[in-house]
Amino acid sequence: MSARAGIVVTGTEVLTGRVQDRNGPWIADRLLELGVELAHITICGDRPADIEAQLRFMAAEGVDLVVTSGGLGPTADDMTVATVARFCGRELVLDEALEETIAGILRRLMGGRHGVDFEAVMAANRKQAMVPEGAHVLSPVGTAPGVVVPGSPTVLVLPGPPRELQPMWRTAVDDDAFSAAIAGRTVYRQETIRMFGLPESGLAETLREAEQSVRGFDRLEITTCLRRGELEIVTRYEPDAADSYAALLDVLRDKHGRELFSIDGALVDDQVAALLAGRTIATAESCTAGLVAARLTDRPGSSDYVAGGVVSYSNDAKVNLLGVDAALIEAHGAVSEPVAEAMAAGALRRFDADTAVAITGIAGPGGGSEEKPVGTVCFCIALGDGRIHTRTLVLPGNRSDIRERSTTVALHMLRHALTEAAS
Amino acid sequence: MSARAGIVVTGTEVLTGRVQDRNGPWIADRLLELGVELAHITICGDRPADIEAQLRFMAAEGVDLVVTSGGLGPTADDMTVATVARFCGRELVLDEALEETIAGILRRLMGGRHGVDFEAVMAANRKQAMVPEGAHVLSPVGTAPGVVVPGSPTVLVLPGPPRELQPMWRTAVDDDAFSAAIAGRTVYRQETIRMFGLPESGLAETLREAEQSVRGFDRLEITTCLRRGELEIVTRYEPDAADSYAALLDVLRDKHGRELFSIDGALVDDQVAALLAGRTIATAESCTAGLVAARLTDRPGSSDYVAGGVVSYSNDAKVNLLGVDAALIEAHGAVSEPVAEAMAAGALRRFDADTAVAITGIAGPGGGSEEKPVGTVCFCIALGDGRIHTRTLVLPGNRSDIRERSTTVALHMLRHALTEAAS
Repeated sequence: MSARAGIVVTGTEVLTGRVQDRNGPWIADRLLELGVELAHITICGDRPADIEAQLRFMAAEGVDLVVTSGGLGPTADDMTVATVARFCGRELVLDEALEETIAGILRRLMGGRHGVDFEAVMAANRKQAMVPEGAHVLSPVGTAPGVVVPGSPTVLVLPGPPRELQPMWRTAVDDDAFSAAIAGRTVYRQETIRMFGLPESGLAETLREAEQSVRGFDRLEITTCLRRGELEIVTRYEPDAADSYAALLDVLRDKHGRELFSIDGALVDDQVAALLAGRTIATAESCTAGLVAARLTDRPGSSDYVAGGVVSYSNDAKVNLLGVDAALIEAHGAVSEPVAEAMAAGALRRFDADTAVAITGIAGPGGGSEEKPVGTVCFCIALGDGRIHTRTLVLPGNRSDIRERSTTVALHMLRHALTEAAS
Repeated sequence: MSARAGIVVTGTEVLTGRVQDRNGPWIADRLLELGVELAHITICGDRPADIEAQLRFMAAEGVDLVVTSGGLGPTADDMTVATVARFCGRELVLDEALEETIAGILRRLMGGRHGVDFEAVMAANRKQAMVPEGAHVLSPVGTAPGVVVPGSPTVLVLPGPPRELQPMWRTAVDDDAFSAAIAGRTVYRQETIRMFGLPESGLAETLREAEQSVRGFDRLEITTCLRRGELEIVTRYEPDAADSYAALLDVLRDKHGRELFSIDGALVDDQVAALLAGRTIATAESCTAGLVAARLTDRPGSSDYVAGGVVSYSNDAKVNLLGVDAALIEAHGAVSEPVAEAMAAGALRRFDADTAVAITGIAGPGGGSEEKPVGTVCFCIALGDGRIHTRTLVLPGNRSDIRERSTTVALHMLRHALTEAAS
């Protein structure tokens, strides 16, 4: 038994590359978790003939489930639902309860706005309440409802914006017709390991060795991915191959204990957030200019431990806001370990914090020199007990890579420093 | 006349979303430049049956050109060339000159390495010198050659790594068979308009009216996309429909002059960067916690006008670093227009700047009240000449949406304030 699926991504902006498709990979992951095999992803523009051709292709390939994303908006170029209805041989009918729901959502959205003709807006949105006869409606998260159309294949129609698609997917998973379509799935386990600071070739070498030493290695489906300087190792296996996975994990721990930081999929952000409980952190950023502060405050409740930060882009800001000695900048340059340390000390003091992270570097493309090339970044973590951790790296890539990678390095240095302080 | 193309992306790591496909969008852009219409992108894993199914689909859809990427490596799971040969009904033959070329490349690559059996490596790579009979060979940039197989459709086979694919594409464009396949291409113009603050349904309404009033409206291929609260309207047309496009632009300017901010595709970031020339800006951020500073410094050269900023996440930080009066916070709350104005004034003063942007709001999920629900955000732009612009909005969405949308609102308020100041 097995269940196969296909994904049809619609949208001229995605086809032409103006918008990066985030739904295909996300749905691919969810299908994998469910034990459904993904056979094809297809992308086309907002043209009914092309959408229908892709649906026919999926049907001809014998998939059990087709998931579509996009094309559910109120504008005339959004025609996925009508196309799916025709493909499935079903009439489009007005769902009056759904129309009322959408009207309610729109009324709330436009609440305070003057000069908007509500009836005109509602007329434009009426088409969103037209669904294929007999389809199961998924309540809108934005204004666009989704539908599940039972059949061979069953078609699940979802909106394009990821923040609407993702919660609606979770509703769809509980739908009867959806469950029936993927009844043949195989249940797998999936585990995620994360490492930082190991080159991909080092991991490849270890996996080649593990192929010899780990019994049942061929029953583990391992995919590795390098992202933001972190290696993500995802392993999928049937439950009775759990011993082989445990043996693989032992090998990885043994060889790469220093680099391995997560065996439960937790992100470094999760770990740093946990380590910061009961503490107060402040940031002092130059080249990352707020990216570390923004990342630390990404999660709800971060105001419990984030006091704030200074973006000291200019030298004056370093002196005036963080109390860095101008003579220090003069002597060592703004991108130097002494200045990073003085920035961290200033952040501790100015925010009355017990944890500070400071970054000063050259993100480029200008500003590099022979001694300090573009990509040179100095980091300092300072703790209230006087401990400091200082480091200089030369990071590869363009301006955006260097800024993003610096942010990740800072989080890993924080993790190290706080783990050490807690032990 | 027209020329249509399809792109077949192969690779299990791309299908499963572990690696983001960068080739589809890149090739899409190149086809657009050439005036070739892209109909479909399809993605499948390293399975010959799936690759062949996608090639058959493209042929059935009547495309003139299929471009494949990936699956040209020396390992057993790379089988795109063999699959394309079978699909095109051509034998695979050993190209001896090509084999010599690949051997030369490998010899250079392995030059310094000890303990490598060159003959074994060469045997593994011999399959890369097998090409469909009568195909045109594209010299390898890495070790994998590409091929152009003339026919209906003509198939262009390219390697997966973008740094190999991109230069080889440029060689392919000069190939006779490639040129013949796209002989029917039409040169299009493409224009991008951006708006902010208009709901998508309002634009839909206007476009429905324009369909009646603009002569030759049906010759304009219009796609609209809502992103970060901004509407992007891309119109593609043949050069002799330029009058219709001009008429459409008049309609949009007429109805939405307030919301329309770009008719040349420029981003608000570009416009703000230009308006900041000769000025000095500082930020004071609470709920966005560095996102505005990070966005302003995204582009090279921003150190000319960005002095820095304060992330004043806690009330103490607002008082100590920005000089906000604690009594003001007590009286109005941290999320209030008087506090936003005091934060902006503090940023001007502390950074000796002539432009400041301040944001204080409730990103949620906690912290909301009946009077100030989650999503309430107060903005203030203050200029050195004493002018201030203050505004409070209630933004929809989750924590991350509210933070990102606030950042965009701040940039648009900056654009307004600086445009007014310059006039």
